[in-house]
Amino acid sequence: MTQSAPSKRTQVNRLPKRGDYSKETIYGILDAAFLCHVGFVVDGQPYVIPTGYGRDGGTLYIHGSAASRMLRNLEKGIEACITVTLIDGIVLARAAFHHSMNYRSVVLLGTATFIDDAEAKMSALRAISEQIVPGRWKEARLPNAQELKATTVLAMPIDEASAKIRTGPPVDDEEDYGLDIWAGVLPLSMHAGAPISDPRLMSRIESIPEYILNYRRR
Amino acid sequence: MTQSAPSKRTQVNRLPKRGDYSKETIYGILDAAFLCHVGFVVDGQPYVIPTGYGRDGGTLYIHGSAASRMLRNLEKGIEACITVTLIDGIVLARAAFHHSMNYRSVVLLGTATFIDDAEAKMSALRAISEQIVPGRWKEARLPNAQELKATTVLAMPIDEASAKIRTGPPVDDEEDYGLDIWAGVLPLSMHAGAPISDPRLMSRIESIPEYILNYRRR
Repeated sequence: MTQSAPSKRTQVNRLPKRGDYSKETIYGILDAAFLCHVGFVVDGQPYVIPTGYGRDGGTLYIHGSAASRMLRNLEKGIEACITVTLIDGIVLARAAFHHSMNYRSVVLLGTATFIDDAEAKMSALRAISEQIVPGRWKEARLPNAQELKATTVLAMPIDEASAKIRTGPPVDDEEDYGLDIWAGVLPLSMHAGAPISDPRLMSRIESIPEYILNYRRR
Repeated sequence: MTQSAPSKRTQVNRLPKRGDYSKETIYGILDAAFLCHVGFVVDGQPYVIPTGYGRDGGTLYIHGSAASRMLRNLEKGIEACITVTLIDGIVLARAAFHHSMNYRSVVLLGTATFIDDAEAKMSALRAISEQIVPGRWKEARLPNAQELKATTVLAMPIDEASAKIRTGPPVDDEEDYGLDIWAGVLPLSMHAGAPISDPRLMSRIESIPEYILNYRRR
């Protein structure tokens, strides 16, 4: 893993000690999540749209209907920003001013490329599927030619990116530590509940797959 | 609550039956979350930055350091997009093509206003605090004049907004329902873990507040 220098546009200006530009850190955060928020501009108006993604090597993939406004704009090669955020906890300081969150986030700038080749498209769709539910791709009924055609897949190189991380307890002003106020961290994380079988599930399918029963996010 | 017509910019084009423009739905989603992704444009480049927020009536508030690049740009009144997303589950169809997520999201367009008045600022900060940890504001040491000055608070009217919601089981192609593939929904939600007291907590503070112990997101 290389330690890349931040670009002027991705440099973390506020609280720079929270910034990290190593591919190892950036890939680690990207691999722990599956939802990103994609920013793009149409007629001067920014839009931010949530969507699933997958990482494969130095590339982040997003997909959707070929009719999607977001994808039709992005495939023109306009400037984009893809942000991934994981909230790990709420940081309760004694002072309201010093409240914070523990989090891991990545901000990725660049332009997306339309993937035309069917094999590359299939590989990218597998990456997205495996990012969201590891193990599902080998079991699902895979896309046919018509479905592939109806799906747009875009690739964004993970080149101009920065990570920002906060961990640990609150940091209060020295004179506030003596106050009679509980302080600490309330950890937050995404948990899977009990799977709900489709009402139309064939009655002969009795067991829920292990990769669903043991689903966990980091 | 009024049913407002979508603007051309917030109209849900893809899968329009998932779109909702009622204030009741939009406020409900905004009240269930506390993290938003803010999109803005600098030199033609979109940026998407995660931050906490609070809703009070028809206004959404965000805040941060007066030195924040995002806030210094937004307070000029440039176009912004604030998006809130709650992931409720992964929808596992038989066909890879029909996989989806259950979610609730709001996309809000507009321009932000700088809040100068100290009382209005304090009220907005309380709204943000109560959105993230209801009950905390009355216990924390409140901001002093210097902290208020170091904090920028921006208000964004919840006028031009749309909600998008997906719920329920997967929808497969009719011919796929007979396949030997488990299908259903894996519910996902944000859970609080056991609170971690600050290592520097005064030893006389023995109990963790109820609003922390019973913390729940909807």
